[in-house]
Amino acid sequence: MAILVVGSVAFDSIETSHGRVEDCLGGAATHFALAASYFTQVRVTAVVGEDFTGAHEDVLLRRGIDTQGIERAAGRSFHWSGSYVQDPAEAQTLNTELNVFERFSPKIPVQYQDSEFLFLANIDPVLQMQVRRQMPNVKLVCGDTMNYWISSQRDNLAAVMKELDVLTINNSEVRMLAGEDVLLRAARKVLAMGPKALIVKHGEYGVTAFFNESSFGHDSSRSQTIFRAPALPLHEVVDPTGAGDSFAGGFYGYLASQPALTPLAFRTAMFYGSVMGSFAVERFGTERLQSVTQEEIEQRFALFRELSHLE
Amino acid sequence: MAILVVGSVAFDSIETSHGRVEDCLGGAATHFALAASYFTQVRVTAVVGEDFTGAHEDVLLRRGIDTQGIERAAGRSFHWSGSYVQDPAEAQTLNTELNVFERFSPKIPVQYQDSEFLFLANIDPVLQMQVRRQMPNVKLVCGDTMNYWISSQRDNLAAVMKELDVLTINNSEVRMLAGEDVLLRAARKVLAMGPKALIVKHGEYGVTAFFNESSFGHDSSRSQTIFRAPALPLHEVVDPTGAGDSFAGGFYGYLASQPALTPLAFRTAMFYGSVMGSFAVERFGTERLQSVTQEEIEQRFALFRELSHLE
Repeated sequence: MAILVVGSVAFDSIETSHGRVEDCLGGAATHFALAASYFTQVRVTAVVGEDFTGAHEDVLLRRGIDTQGIERAAGRSFHWSGSYVQDPAEAQTLNTELNVFERFSPKIPVQYQDSEFLFLANIDPVLQMQVRRQMPNVKLVCGDTMNYWISSQRDNLAAVMKELDVLTINNSEVRMLAGEDVLLRAARKVLAMGPKALIVKHGEYGVTAFFNESSFGHDSSRSQTIFRAPALPLHEVVDPTGAGDSFAGGFYGYLASQPALTPLAFRTAMFYGSVMGSFAVERFGTERLQSVTQEEIEQRFALFRELSHLE
Repeated sequence: MAILVVGSVAFDSIETSHGRVEDCLGGAATHFALAASYFTQVRVTAVVGEDFTGAHEDVLLRRGIDTQGIERAAGRSFHWSGSYVQDPAEAQTLNTELNVFERFSPKIPVQYQDSEFLFLANIDPVLQMQVRRQMPNVKLVCGDTMNYWISSQRDNLAAVMKELDVLTINNSEVRMLAGEDVLLRAARKVLAMGPKALIVKHGEYGVTAFFNESSFGHDSSRSQTIFRAPALPLHEVVDPTGAGDSFAGGFYGYLASQPALTPLAFRTAMFYGSVMGSFAVERFGTERLQSVTQEEIEQRFALFRELSHLE
């Protein structure tokens, strides 16, 4: 089933201990779409400027991604620059230029209306809600957010959260959103805000999902409403940018490819998400996500399984 | 098969956000022995002072632990006091009194000589080596250490590491020992120092084992030489003291109870270690480890399995 992703298509300048790149194609929607494209049909709604060329669009088209919803506007695309030199685990933002994103008002093309899976990447919750209203018939809604929106747009974010089946945020964001340091208690508080499931991203320690009872086929007699997928220890992380979005793409792409939303499908999707996140960080920007093969994905999935399963 | 553990039997004064206890029975050997006692026969070599009463010894005896190797000396036992109020994840040491431990020279009783498994808890590497020399015929040697010995006793520690089958240390210790920030590369460097396997403890994110090829039944054709066991997200961590030693006790106790050191036995042992660590932190000191039942252990093992396995 087709996924519609709404979020940023951007240019990133990134500095890590492995080097520096200028203006490489990035943005949450880009990472998400590339990762998800290995599993299902992906459609993108975003806005770009005149610096987004045919060569950039080809990166998406080569992966079979539908780019008809990418709006062209006068001016420059969203630009972000960040550094991981001080802390390899967390980006230090050096500069953010919203540019064309400043006046973005997402309009979902008619031909996208039958998308059954919606992913609201990390953008202003007001825009997330605007998109949600244009897609009343989707089967599943998954979304992301960040500390900036948690502190500055709490009410609008609360409205979005009531619309979500799955929220994917990181370790510090779940604690900030809940105002609670203990992960399990923070997760329960966030689930009470609306989402049926919460996936917390722990970077090099993988991801943890928390389910509301009775969601995703978990019957209420089942005490177990937590699942953890590991991360793969890597020889080197060249560039962590987009790891979380690539996780979300692999996770949601696999889920959309499945006939039913069972606990097993959800768990397996978390493994595929971790697989795509592990590829994403091996090269700068989206380079690795453009070139990975189905065979490499299956091999790495097997590695993740062996890494975590007793038998 | 019987395990001999050599390490501290101590009194701890601990302050956490859940309260404060004074002079409760603690020490690495105590936590380890209690956790391991649910799986196999455990023998302890340590030194205590006149403040160690029959009531304290009974805590160990009730779990069937052999205390004949606990030497009584004039003076007070080792005392430690620490606080987790500032940082729930890492103890701030407020005071350490070595007392009788200052002149400890471990002598292994004759009746312990047939122990097949040796655990060298976190003590001065000079003492660890002294014990190792007295036990030339053990089948397996597992050991722990800490940042203090890594920085102050590097040469003596290097000698101990060559004697180890399994080294269990935490996240920051493996990086400090290797002088390398990337976990996988740090682990490979530490394995090159001697141990056949390294288990890195990540606190609330579980544990990762790294194996030298051909150790523990891993044949060299097998690419997969890493295993991760999760931790259980808990509603509250009352007192983290001894979590790592309890992990080691559960891990080593299970391993000693098995007929062969297969990869499956090693992996399962890591799960049982995590199970015992998760019990240990539920109450202050060793309280929970004194009272857990076999049924609770098996139930929690099933929970850990369900938490991490696709099917």
